[in-house]
Amino acid sequence: MNDLPAGTVASSRASVVRLMVPTDANFTGAVFGGQILSEVDRVAYIAASRHARATCVTASFDRVDFILPVRVGEVVDFTAQLTYVGRSSMEVWVRVSAEEVLGGPPRLVGEAFVTMVAVDAAGRPVPVPPLALGTPEERVRFEEGRQRMETRKRSRRRP
Amino acid sequence: MNDLPAGTVASSRASVVRLMVPTDANFTGAVFGGQILSEVDRVAYIAASRHARATCVTASFDRVDFILPVRVGEVVDFTAQLTYVGRSSMEVWVRVSAEEVLGGPPRLVGEAFVTMVAVDAAGRPVPVPPLALGTPEERVRFEEGRQRMETRKRSRRRP
Amino acid sequence: MNDLPAGTVASSRASVVRLMVPTDANFTGAVFGGQILSEVDRVAYIAASRHARATCVTASFDRVDFILPVRVGEVVDFTAQLTYVGRSSMEVWVRVSAEEVLGGPPRLVGEAFVTMVAVDAAGRPVPVPPLALGTPEERVRFEEGRQRMETRKRSRRRP
Amino acid sequence: MNDLPAGTVASSRASVVRLMVPTDANFTGAVFGGQILSEVDRVAYIAASRHARATCVTASFDRVDFILPVRVGEVVDFTAQLTYVGRSSMEVWVRVSAEEVLGGPPRLVGEAFVTMVAVDAAGRPVPVPPLALGTPEERVRFEEGRQRMETRKRSRRRP
Amino acid sequence: MNDLPAGTVASSRASVVRLMVPTDANFTGAVFGGQILSEVDRVAYIAASRHARATCVTASFDRVDFILPVRVGEVVDFTAQLTYVGRSSMEVWVRVSAEEVLGGPPRLVGEAFVTMVAVDAAGRPVPVPPLALGTPEERVRFEEGRQRMETRKRSRRRP
Amino acid sequence: MNDLPAGTVASSRASVVRLMVPTDANFTGAVFGGQILSEVDRVAYIAASRHARATCVTASFDRVDFILPVRVGEVVDFTAQLTYVGRSSMEVWVRVSAEEVLGGPPRLVGEAFVTMVAVDAAGRPVPVPPLALGTPEERVRFEEGRQRMETRKRSRRRP
Repeated sequence: MNDLPAGTVASSRASVVRLMVPTDANFTGAVFGGQILSEVDRVAYIAASRHARATCVTASFDRVDFILPVRVGEVVDFTAQLTYVGRSSMEVWVRVSAEEVLGGPPRLVGEAFVTMVAVDAAGRPVPVPPLALGTPEERVRFEEGRQRMETRKRSRRRP
Repeated sequence: MNDLPAGTVASSRASVVRLMVPTDANFTGAVFGGQILSEVDRVAYIAASRHARATCVTASFDRVDFILPVRVGEVVDFTAQLTYVGRSSMEVWVRVSAEEVLGGPPRLVGEAFVTMVAVDAAGRPVPVPPLALGTPEERVRFEEGRQRMETRKRSRRRP
Repeated sequence: MNDLPAGTVASSRASVVRLMVPTDANFTGAVFGGQILSEVDRVAYIAASRHARATCVTASFDRVDFILPVRVGEVVDFTAQLTYVGRSSMEVWVRVSAEEVLGGPPRLVGEAFVTMVAVDAAGRPVPVPPLALGTPEERVRFEEGRQRMETRKRSRRRP
Repeated sequence: MNDLPAGTVASSRASVVRLMVPTDANFTGAVFGGQILSEVDRVAYIAASRHARATCVTASFDRVDFILPVRVGEVVDFTAQLTYVGRSSMEVWVRVSAEEVLGGPPRLVGEAFVTMVAVDAAGRPVPVPPLALGTPEERVRFEEGRQRMETRKRSRRRP
Repeated sequence: MNDLPAGTVASSRASVVRLMVPTDANFTGAVFGGQILSEVDRVAYIAASRHARATCVTASFDRVDFILPVRVGEVVDFTAQLTYVGRSSMEVWVRVSAEEVLGGPPRLVGEAFVTMVAVDAAGRPVPVPPLALGTPEERVRFEEGRQRMETRKRSRRRP
Repeated sequence: MNDLPAGTVASSRASVVRLMVPTDANFTGAVFGGQILSEVDRVAYIAASRHARATCVTASFDRVDFILPVRVGEVVDFTAQLTYVGRSSMEVWVRVSAEEVLGGPPRLVGEAFVTMVAVDAAGRPVPVPPLALGTPEERVRFEEGRQRMETRKRSRRRP
């Protein structure tokens, strides 16, 4: 797509663990969904910026279902990796899992597809390196990502 | 649906204005998408809790497109109102508009449909009052909300 | 007073609702007064900046009585509007009301008159547009504001 | 006034120095007045709680003039001491001075009289120890504080 | 040491990446050392709590040299793993590396050995599972950790 | 060492009192060690910057033992003063004591020696004024500080 050297899926991967504290939660101890999405955006930003070697802005969040509530005292793991790369836009897949710090296996609590766009200092889109696809799984995800990107373009709400 | 006295759309409406400061933004001065979604969740929580007179948890965010970037120094207005109410779940419509504090008209920068569920202290769903629909516009939105809720149920991703 | 086009009281009005969380409060669950005043200052800043179309600094807070304590879990509404406008200074009236999110009517918990001054990048006062007064009530408040401003000038403490 | 052993002015004194950072300021680098008042309230709370050996709530702030603006990069000193003690209420005098960290003498930027009330876990006023007055200056301030307290009671705004 | 089933070094490992923002830094853009140590403590807490399946408190930080300054705009990686486990205390080794988000290899900027103690709800030490050592490297680190722990006990400052 | 006019130990002294709130603590109410170290760094920064009249960066923290845990609801006093000054580096001694706001004497909970280096806008070390030693105690501390500084130089870990 351009002459920038390709980057691998692995080299952009970013992971954050966070202990959820009372300020993250409502009065029943359930963590606010917006608090989770804010962390999702930050880890997606790191993954996209690492790949693009440029500042990025969030273009969209696909629908996010909170499969299971996250609770205060849990350690939450946010793991981001790139699935699809266009000219300036990237799709980042973020998986969120939680485990009680005092025991029990991690469980998936949500996942999100975030579209990020690389921009210059004036906020104009800039080209990003292609994504080097190493495994069959990465190829499948790239193709699925490409299709989601087209769906987004078609259905974008205009005010 | 239950014997709770109905609440109106107007009585649940909640509005927040916030001045965006440098800590909300990346290095080009564009506000992080996650920061916006975190405020969207909070104002949706207030609207849903006012209607339900109960604590609420976020069940899902529909796709959110960031139509125009928000920048540091802008005053952002988040306005939430209920569109649809089921047994324990509510759909909240949040519109986000921004204006430069030093001049210029407000512009729509994004909107979101957030599904909230009313819960008791143990996190179990509890019934919420019905929504009293006063205007034809509110009736149309309620019907649209009902259809989106069914779409969500059908397409919910299971891990 | 100057040739800037006048602004109305309504167009500067700003409103913020905030859910009070445990970090806002002392050990009995009563929200710190300083936390309330910090929000009062921010909403007054937005109202004054909108009118002045300039950055503003706080010149003074009149006495603030906390009529009733605000408690964690309450939704607090801060509403600001201009009452009086001088050459560079503006008086902003902020009313603070609180309601329990789980039920009960809102009650007035405090109010404040904040004096803001419009400044340029070097911090020097700049002229602000006159205030267009539309209703008899706005005229009465303007005159009361003018009198309070004179009282402030006379009684200002000098170190 | 009660049988609690008296406390001295010196033993309640509390002092905080804080470096002002960009998040405390508006776009010209002037620190928000509300940010200053929030620190004033916190240091007054510590002074009052130390004297009362009880949790306290803020009853009122007297008028606060911001004599000189505080700027980002300055070290600000907040010093609180009790001036007057009634049955459950205390008047705390807070002086705010600022100095540039890179040089220059401290200058007084504002001062405030905060009224605090000692409360039990249910928020009801509880008696506080009398104030032991050691110097002529402390006696003068106590009498001035007593007069301000009476003025406050007479002029309290009722909604 | 006790009958608790042993945990592996790998299962306690915790990693956090964080983008450093202007609020983390002084006026030359260098991140405050205390900000780094605060993150070091949090990731050490997660590693120790995961192993102990109990709440932990920090007993000591060994000397920390900041080899190279961290700057705003860098992505910093904090990786913690257990090196030594006693009866109730654990030594956690945290390595801190930084990379510019817009390019360049990661570089080690500091490392720390944090001693954590597992406690019950009353703050009393509780036994922790032994550490299962799988590789020669883990055995060497365990022995080094044991020696550091003895040095700490001997040289602990008493007020 | 250079021609800058000497500064006294007393004129650099900085003190901060802070009330510890639930967000500072883990689930047993014990304040996170990293939270304490973050405040230690800030107060050391103020003491060093006041002496150097320059921006400073943290070069190292000596070992810190948390002698007694600090708990939510306690008022913690951080007092910093310079002990030793080299060409560009300064040793700052910070003592941390805590007292329950509702009664009880203050107790020493920890102390730290922080090495700070004065830098210019490009981050390069700049000379700092000599330290004027007024009392025998200050001379002893200066000599002890000089010896610790040499020990640090010898044992600095290199990655």
